[in-house]
Amino acid sequence: MNVDGQPHRTIWRDGDGVVHVIDQRALPFRFQTTTVATSTAMAGAIADMVVRGAGLIGAAAGYGMYLAAAEAVRQAPADAEARHAHLRHAASTLLASRPTAVNLSWAVDRQLLALVGIDDPTELLHRAAQEAEAIADEDAEFCRRIGEHGRPILEQIHRAKQANQQTDPNNQHETTVNVLTHCNAGWLAFVDHGTATAPIYAAHDAGIPVHVWVDETRPRNQGARLTAWELGQHGVPHTVIVDNAGGHLMQNGWVDLVLTGSDRTSADGDVANKIGTYLKALAARDNEIPFYVALPSSSIDWSLAGGVRGTPIEERDSQEVTHIEGVTANGEVVEVRVVADGSGAANHAFDVTPSRLVTGLITERGICPATTEGIATLFPDRPSPSVPSAPASAPASAPAP
Amino acid sequence: MNVDGQPHRTIWRDGDGVVHVIDQRALPFRFQTTTVATSTAMAGAIADMVVRGAGLIGAAAGYGMYLAAAEAVRQAPADAEARHAHLRHAASTLLASRPTAVNLSWAVDRQLLALVGIDDPTELLHRAAQEAEAIADEDAEFCRRIGEHGRPILEQIHRAKQANQQTDPNNQHETTVNVLTHCNAGWLAFVDHGTATAPIYAAHDAGIPVHVWVDETRPRNQGARLTAWELGQHGVPHTVIVDNAGGHLMQNGWVDLVLTGSDRTSADGDVANKIGTYLKALAARDNEIPFYVALPSSSIDWSLAGGVRGTPIEERDSQEVTHIEGVTANGEVVEVRVVADGSGAANHAFDVTPSRLVTGLITERGICPATTEGIATLFPDRPSPSVPSAPASAPASAPAP
Repeated sequence: MNVDGQPHRTIWRDGDGVVHVIDQRALPFRFQTTTVATSTAMAGAIADMVVRGAGLIGAAAGYGMYLAAAEAVRQAPADAEARHAHLRHAASTLLASRPTAVNLSWAVDRQLLALVGIDDPTELLHRAAQEAEAIADEDAEFCRRIGEHGRPILEQIHRAKQANQQTDPNNQHETTVNVLTHCNAGWLAFVDHGTATAPIYAAHDAGIPVHVWVDETRPRNQGARLTAWELGQHGVPHTVIVDNAGGHLMQNGWVDLVLTGSDRTSADGDVANKIGTYLKALAARDNEIPFYVALPSSSIDWSLAGGVRGTPIEERDSQEVTHIEGVTANGEVVEVRVVADGSGAANHAFDVTPSRLVTGLITERGICPATTEGIATLFPDRPSPSVPSAPASAPASAPAP
Repeated sequence: MNVDGQPHRTIWRDGDGVVHVIDQRALPFRFQTTTVATSTAMAGAIADMVVRGAGLIGAAAGYGMYLAAAEAVRQAPADAEARHAHLRHAASTLLASRPTAVNLSWAVDRQLLALVGIDDPTELLHRAAQEAEAIADEDAEFCRRIGEHGRPILEQIHRAKQANQQTDPNNQHETTVNVLTHCNAGWLAFVDHGTATAPIYAAHDAGIPVHVWVDETRPRNQGARLTAWELGQHGVPHTVIVDNAGGHLMQNGWVDLVLTGSDRTSADGDVANKIGTYLKALAARDNEIPFYVALPSSSIDWSLAGGVRGTPIEERDSQEVTHIEGVTANGEVVEVRVVADGSGAANHAFDVTPSRLVTGLITERGICPATTEGIATLFPDRPSPSVPSAPASAPASAPAP
């Protein structure tokens, strides 16, 4: 999507074969891109969250393996075995950078499979570059399709509001489609388009008036920092709100649609996403507002039935709650403590929205109900689990002291 | 309640007639008390939020009128008319300090009524001091009674958990009562005890094991700053969480009870309280967890039926969302921007929880259902509205651009 009027991806390889990424740690306070010269540097960029987000991590790993192939050709121009040994070594370094990221191992394995048995150095490098581009292109293309499949939902709301406006032509804003989103399921988390944002960008680019309520998304503020920034750069009207505000906005008719991403969707449609998503789904249901989840099918956990009980929920450092990073009036980026000294904090990173609260799933293949049967209509090639999984971690019966 | 092991009120008059308050602007980063020497200084302390919170503002206004009486006696020892003129002048200054605070005008009027027609200067000063103490004592006493009425709810939960523990004696935490609260309806907002916190303090002081989940309560962070601080000072175990977390905690059985305050309760039981309260009420209902609201009857708006549509909701400066105050590692208190530059923000201060989601109201007279009939059983001396009020401000059909 656009940055400062120019189309951008989160990661790309230029004509000289150099890999560039947006340094996301500096956003939104500074926009800066950086080159990544080696496979080790790419592992570091993933580990340090220079790049982050499911789709982008996969693409970065793909380019990381391309860099490893370039290193292998340079270091061992006459030794095919040494080249493949280096690829395996680089693969293990990349895999260790964010051990729980599903897309990371998927992309590394895909490259290893593409390169196996290629002894010619020129062919090896060419094939690695080709596969890295294919991984990135596919990520962007799946997100683009999610946008195309989701855009009609916004169009229909817009048309319905246009019809209503006939009765009250004085209201200037009446036909704008107001979307509420949570966290950053935007293009910054993928190669382009994003998931929850893809239908928004598609509708906006098609001339449909869209306005986005951006949940700031405590504790890491990905909404206020990343979603607000990328919407602003692409010119999509938006307003940042605290995570507490969504229910009130919905009660007053100021939200037409809720659109979020998903970190892991169970095979029967429960949606694990950033903490707080469940609360917005409850408010959407209470106010009869559609609640859609946009996701590439790669985030469906085909082995999991019963996501509410079965999804392992990451607990992160409490300092993410007690401290916050911001920029002072002097432009200095500092971290401050915002919680009473001596008070502890808990930091569960995700929650699970039960499928009964989800209006539909928007995937690269189309929209379906958030049920085993609904998902099977779009993905008949996938096995559905026949028995509920055991809980990945039994919920404790009491909080941490 | 206790500060550093010593019982404290938020406002008090010492043996020399000097009025002291806790400077709440400095909390939680510094605990400091300050004296308020004149009625004008008290109006300034209210306006600058040195003191804040419904009950405390009323008490501060009462003491402000006592200070005005002392000034009148000093300045016009021989002129009764001039003394009363000064009281009326001081009253108007105090009333202008926070124009929308209901308790402010109530306390000022109560003092004016108590002092009317008293010509003897000694008697005037004595009566003003007496009334100021009565206002503060009554506020503390009403909160204490809320605590006594609410405590059995926690006791019953504790006893039920003790009974359950027989089946699983290995679980150490099983009998702790886990309460979730939102914002600061604590003793800092009143003279003592608070409202939502009163049953918590009463249970804790009675030896019932209590643990409180403290919503940080964006955007002004009254939970993380004030509730966490006062619970910590009194020794009540607690954990700060982001406002997004409550639903997940409830889904996992980690919350036994939700307890909040109320800024305005309609005569038929709708509860206007800090933005985000409604979302927690929805999650409590979805997980069959009791949701109680603690309030002095002074916060019931007897003229209002239908709070969801009829309550005017204050919109505050968007800078409260885009910027946050905290303390650096060097101990310096600074404000930082946390939202992408160029992105606007909306800041609705309250939302309204429909009475259907409220398990009960805990008042100074006891607990009742959040219905017109329920409230009438405790307050038969109050008229109930016979027709729904017109909306105070019609909700707009579109967001701010």
